[in-house]
Amino acid sequence: MAVYTEVSFEVLEALLEHYDVGAPTSFKGIAEGVENSNYLLQTTKGNFILTLYEKRVAATDLPFFLSLMRHLAAQGLPCPIPVMSKSGATTAQVNGRPAAILTFLEGLSLRRPQPAQCHAAGEALAQLHVAGQGFGMTRPNALGPGGWHALVEATRNEADRVQEGLAALITRGHDQLLAHWPHGLACGIIHADLFPDNVLFVDGAVSGLIDFYFACNDALAYDLAVMLNAWCFEGDGSFNVTKSRALLKGYRRVRELDAAELAAMPVLCAGAALRFTLTRLYDWLHPDPGAFVRPKDPREFARALRFHLSVRSAGEYGI
Amino acid sequence: MAVYTEVSFEVLEALLEHYDVGAPTSFKGIAEGVENSNYLLQTTKGNFILTLYEKRVAATDLPFFLSLMRHLAAQGLPCPIPVMSKSGATTAQVNGRPAAILTFLEGLSLRRPQPAQCHAAGEALAQLHVAGQGFGMTRPNALGPGGWHALVEATRNEADRVQEGLAALITRGHDQLLAHWPHGLACGIIHADLFPDNVLFVDGAVSGLIDFYFACNDALAYDLAVMLNAWCFEGDGSFNVTKSRALLKGYRRVRELDAAELAAMPVLCAGAALRFTLTRLYDWLHPDPGAFVRPKDPREFARALRFHLSVRSAGEYGI
Repeated sequence: MAVYTEVSFEVLEALLEHYDVGAPTSFKGIAEGVENSNYLLQTTKGNFILTLYEKRVAATDLPFFLSLMRHLAAQGLPCPIPVMSKSGATTAQVNGRPAAILTFLEGLSLRRPQPAQCHAAGEALAQLHVAGQGFGMTRPNALGPGGWHALVEATRNEADRVQEGLAALITRGHDQLLAHWPHGLACGIIHADLFPDNVLFVDGAVSGLIDFYFACNDALAYDLAVMLNAWCFEGDGSFNVTKSRALLKGYRRVRELDAAELAAMPVLCAGAALRFTLTRLYDWLHPDPGAFVRPKDPREFARALRFHLSVRSAGEYGI
Repeated sequence: MAVYTEVSFEVLEALLEHYDVGAPTSFKGIAEGVENSNYLLQTTKGNFILTLYEKRVAATDLPFFLSLMRHLAAQGLPCPIPVMSKSGATTAQVNGRPAAILTFLEGLSLRRPQPAQCHAAGEALAQLHVAGQGFGMTRPNALGPGGWHALVEATRNEADRVQEGLAALITRGHDQLLAHWPHGLACGIIHADLFPDNVLFVDGAVSGLIDFYFACNDALAYDLAVMLNAWCFEGDGSFNVTKSRALLKGYRRVRELDAAELAAMPVLCAGAALRFTLTRLYDWLHPDPGAFVRPKDPREFARALRFHLSVRSAGEYGI
């Protein structure tokens, strides 16, 4: 929610010489995403986003992310499109950071999506999964089961400082999930972070999907598990099955889930809850002194993890 | 450079019911100003800024600031105009903060304004001074000479931690300025903070003056002294007399300076430098743990203060 690297008018002007995006009429740093610096650039030709990739996004991953957005947009998905420079490049260096100019998407993200919007967002996720087929590049999911061990080790000793019993919950969840993690599910491109922040709506319809910087290849149903965690818990920690039913129904209207995916849903949901518990806990225990953001509370997903570990079948999600 | 108070879509929607500004198509927190939370709101009727006034802006001062902007805009000055609600109010409560919707101004601020832009900005300041005549409300300058003593007291003991000799410089400057502060200069509405950040340009012409939240009544020439400090020092600390000459020339094209104002310029410039040294030093020594901004370096204006204290006549500013 902040701008880490300031870009002056003079630097912007030098950058825009390499692009055919018109003359700038306005340029504002925007508080969007926690990983990068983003500017809303208005020009005589329209609205764009200039993103400077800060250290959390590996420069070597950028070709994957940017090519993916071009691919998805070409399949009709409403996602930002990297604008090519006059010489055909999709990235540039700005103040020492890799940077890209992307098309701007209209729409507003919701704080408390209602069932109808969960339905629409579920449909959009399935459209993303379908559109991702045929994309030629791959990127492993660094925050899947193979990545949890290091995070567990880095947080275990101090977890109980954040919440009593958290270390035991994490250990139990980690052991249990590794033992039961499903293999052989349908895989493909997943967004891996489709929180309400990253879905834009206009008049109740999805107008944009944004922030593809966790996208990778993994089980498609895991992406749905991330969404059930991010869209269906209420502020008081209760799980709103009306919302999850709507989300799943929206998804299945576009892409049907097979029996293995349905059966795996409780484990996948617990896995997604563990992933966000671990990364939030790590950031909470190791705050970046250079960051302008307050770390998010890890306890929210610890509560979700407890819920999913108690779920016996996918029916409890309204399937 | 951050958003302190988050505004959800749902809160925005409730707010907009009271305004006739169209339906929202985009809503982004923007990193602008250090005092308030600002959102760029795009609607079917155009672009607007939603500002939530954080604790540094006294709610009791808001009628002054908002009425002033309406007055100046009515005189033709390119400044944001507070949008009235359907019931005629210019402020609302949003998440517990006073808030206002203002018209959006196109343009970009410059990091390193060149002489031609200093000339244009000087003209714009004089236009502001002329447009401010006839405005019926008044607000004293809390950061004028009467306000310095408390800041000197609050920073003196620790000033040398920031820079050796800074306490002595401040004491000397404070004593000398109080002894020689000019009285009886032409007074009126001043912006009091017209840094390059607060002047927008399109194609080299001034397209907007923003951030009126330090505006008050004081000597008009003091406002020019603030600008000479903010626009005419180079990164290496040298004073660029070509820029100051251009700025003064631009100003005097619209409003002539009288002999008393010209003679007072070195003292006014030193006073402006002291004011920004003191407030920056205070913020440096008392960082707000809730703020997302890094305090600005007070040493920049301490260097400017030393320069102005050594100036013998207004001729050194290129007059």
